[in-house]
Amino acid sequence: MAAEILCVGTELLLGNITNGNARWIAEQLAALGIAHHRQQVVGDNRERLIAAVREAAGRCRLLITTGGLGPTPDDLTAEAIGAAFETPLAERSEVWADIQAKLAARGRPVTPSLRRQALLPVGAALLPNATGSAPGMIWRPDPAGLPFPVQEGFTVLTFPGVPSEMRAMWTATAVPWLQCSGLAEGVFASRMLRFWGVAESSLAEQMADLLESSNPTVAPYAGSGEVKLRLTARGIRQAEAEALLAPLEREIRARAGMACFGADDDSLASVVLERLRQRRQTLAVAESCTGGGLGAALAAVPGASEVFLGGVIAYANAVKQGLLGVPAELLAAHGAVSDPVAQAMAEGARRATGADWALAVTGIAGPGGGSPEKPVGLVHIAVAGPDGCSSEGVRFGSSRGRSWIQLLTAGEALDRLRRRLDATPQAR
Amino acid sequence: MAAEILCVGTELLLGNITNGNARWIAEQLAALGIAHHRQQVVGDNRERLIAAVREAAGRCRLLITTGGLGPTPDDLTAEAIGAAFETPLAERSEVWADIQAKLAARGRPVTPSLRRQALLPVGAALLPNATGSAPGMIWRPDPAGLPFPVQEGFTVLTFPGVPSEMRAMWTATAVPWLQCSGLAEGVFASRMLRFWGVAESSLAEQMADLLESSNPTVAPYAGSGEVKLRLTARGIRQAEAEALLAPLEREIRARAGMACFGADDDSLASVVLERLRQRRQTLAVAESCTGGGLGAALAAVPGASEVFLGGVIAYANAVKQGLLGVPAELLAAHGAVSDPVAQAMAEGARRATGADWALAVTGIAGPGGGSPEKPVGLVHIAVAGPDGCSSEGVRFGSSRGRSWIQLLTAGEALDRLRRRLDATPQAR
Repeated sequence: MAAEILCVGTELLLGNITNGNARWIAEQLAALGIAHHRQQVVGDNRERLIAAVREAAGRCRLLITTGGLGPTPDDLTAEAIGAAFETPLAERSEVWADIQAKLAARGRPVTPSLRRQALLPVGAALLPNATGSAPGMIWRPDPAGLPFPVQEGFTVLTFPGVPSEMRAMWTATAVPWLQCSGLAEGVFASRMLRFWGVAESSLAEQMADLLESSNPTVAPYAGSGEVKLRLTARGIRQAEAEALLAPLEREIRARAGMACFGADDDSLASVVLERLRQRRQTLAVAESCTGGGLGAALAAVPGASEVFLGGVIAYANAVKQGLLGVPAELLAAHGAVSDPVAQAMAEGARRATGADWALAVTGIAGPGGGSPEKPVGLVHIAVAGPDGCSSEGVRFGSSRGRSWIQLLTAGEALDRLRRRLDATPQAR
Repeated sequence: MAAEILCVGTELLLGNITNGNARWIAEQLAALGIAHHRQQVVGDNRERLIAAVREAAGRCRLLITTGGLGPTPDDLTAEAIGAAFETPLAERSEVWADIQAKLAARGRPVTPSLRRQALLPVGAALLPNATGSAPGMIWRPDPAGLPFPVQEGFTVLTFPGVPSEMRAMWTATAVPWLQCSGLAEGVFASRMLRFWGVAESSLAEQMADLLESSNPTVAPYAGSGEVKLRLTARGIRQAEAEALLAPLEREIRARAGMACFGADDDSLASVVLERLRQRRQTLAVAESCTGGGLGAALAAVPGASEVFLGGVIAYANAVKQGLLGVPAELLAAHGAVSDPVAQAMAEGARRATGADWALAVTGIAGPGGGSPEKPVGLVHIAVAGPDGCSSEGVRFGSSRGRSWIQLLTAGEALDRLRRRLDATPQAR
């Protein structure tokens, strides 16, 4: 009756990559109210792929595949699905034209092998790929005369394995199609609330009674430093489902207080940039242990340039002195990883860029460089603004490694600025 | 003939967690030389679990399950496997004694529900769980009289879903068992070669004859701008498998030339840092459109501080002028996204930090800010070094979006420096 996911790729069978696509699609199906009962992975093998597709056709109404749509000889998904239903492939001229145009725009050569990507089973509708070259299909094969059982209305949707392409295609084309497909059991409304500065277990305890609720449901997820609560309500109509969410969200926000920084597509960076945009203020950074990761988090937000001016990557102490004016004596007296140096970096970044606010981070990302007094994972973070400068140390521990420490440092710096902006009235 | 993995858990179908267990086991099977051709996920549902187990019994010789071994009512794996082969469960007194002893040691109460974990199908051997309470089984069910096909020698191994418990049990008990099982088709050796500056399709065409080979095999993967080829060889012994890889790697590197930048855990950043470390030279960055992402890529490499000094995030033009000394006239005459400005940024970063080399990037990451002459996706990248400064524009197109452009810009900048370092003898 329900949906199944079939991920294609020998790299999954070899354990080279984790199947993040299956998880993402599973989450999306749940949000759409479409039950799914099985996920499968097969390799780039024509016969096994055909067998898996035929088996699924006998069990489910909707088969979603990922992977195997590219131009190389081991990309077999379209071909195998056609063969499974004894249907020939035909070239779609509009797809081939689109592939050629995209390559031309990137200055890449058009090679003959790319043309394979324009082949789809006769009768399949196109599932366009706006960002990459290989399109998917939406196809309800004709079950007449096939030597195996096919569920009534069985439809297959194919996606590439590249996560960004798959997600863009899902959102642009699959979601509207699925909403009209009649596969959903009711309508779901959902909201993702985002938290920083609270552990998943503490948040779960604070919300324990709400986690028991069956409609709407509340489910906690831990991300990279961030914690999320997904609120999902089911109703006959969208408005009814939405109406169930609003009071729940109010209750959760009231309990969580400042720890809740946003919802849905918000990030700490987007929230901070928006606050500053409203104040018509600007921001700079001075980064040591993150090496540019804090600036990159800000620059990832479209339109960041209205607020974010830039700053200094002061990885070496000489750069802290030369570009940020951190006094050599301060570095000698306190060490680079200290509150006085973090403050001098932040003030230096404000001075050098003319920004209203500056964030500075200096710490030990490891694996080397730690000591008993200053262990790996220790970071000092300063916030400088029109009303003064403050700094405080934080310990992220060493067990999760360098990139984890760098990621949490950037998040923590943004969160400190967010809390300070929310706690103080507009300063100018 | 081969192995299959069956992961049990509704949380996987809801997308609450990523299936890291499947990946880990897949990697382990590959290393043991045991081919596996399918992975499945089903929820905590007795009937669907029985169906999946019976189907697998008809296809494979070894079924590995994870999850569903705990004490709660939705833990159904042992029960369903017993039912699939029409075999009753029986309590193992040694398991129940072990569970009680473990709980006593942790000062936890012994509740009746825990006793379910001591139930295993009659005839199954115990797969002990040293760290948790629920044991697994190693069971070769009797196929006589069953109303569905069972592969000769079909054996099922069950593991809990908790990764640490599963891994400990795998290593302690499953690996020795699997090594004696006769399932291994030799041992595997593999190598991942990494490329930049070549499209997956072009690389695949260049290596077309090698992609046809069956031992060793060559498989292409596309990443974020990067393209990879995985070489996998099978042999009776490790040394034999490794020996098959070496000449293939030499051939591929000879064909690909400069496009091959490394292997296995290498990144463009780690390769560039290593080249500079050997030369005892240092590196700085000047970043506009990446906002710190280039520096972050360098800082992600442990030990980067020996080579990477830092630099300037010159997001705003005023910062390009103030911290990098880019002349206002240059900005006015050519615009910020131009070769002259990129060169001035790179030279400015060298001057400001004292680094031997500097990379500068300036471009239009979008979605806004493009024009017909300077569209979204246009980036100018400069490399400045002891022997001079050069800059060139590149168009990444707008279709894949802002973060894609930022990621490719950082990679392209590192690649240009890599090629220049490889093309010129040590400059000092």
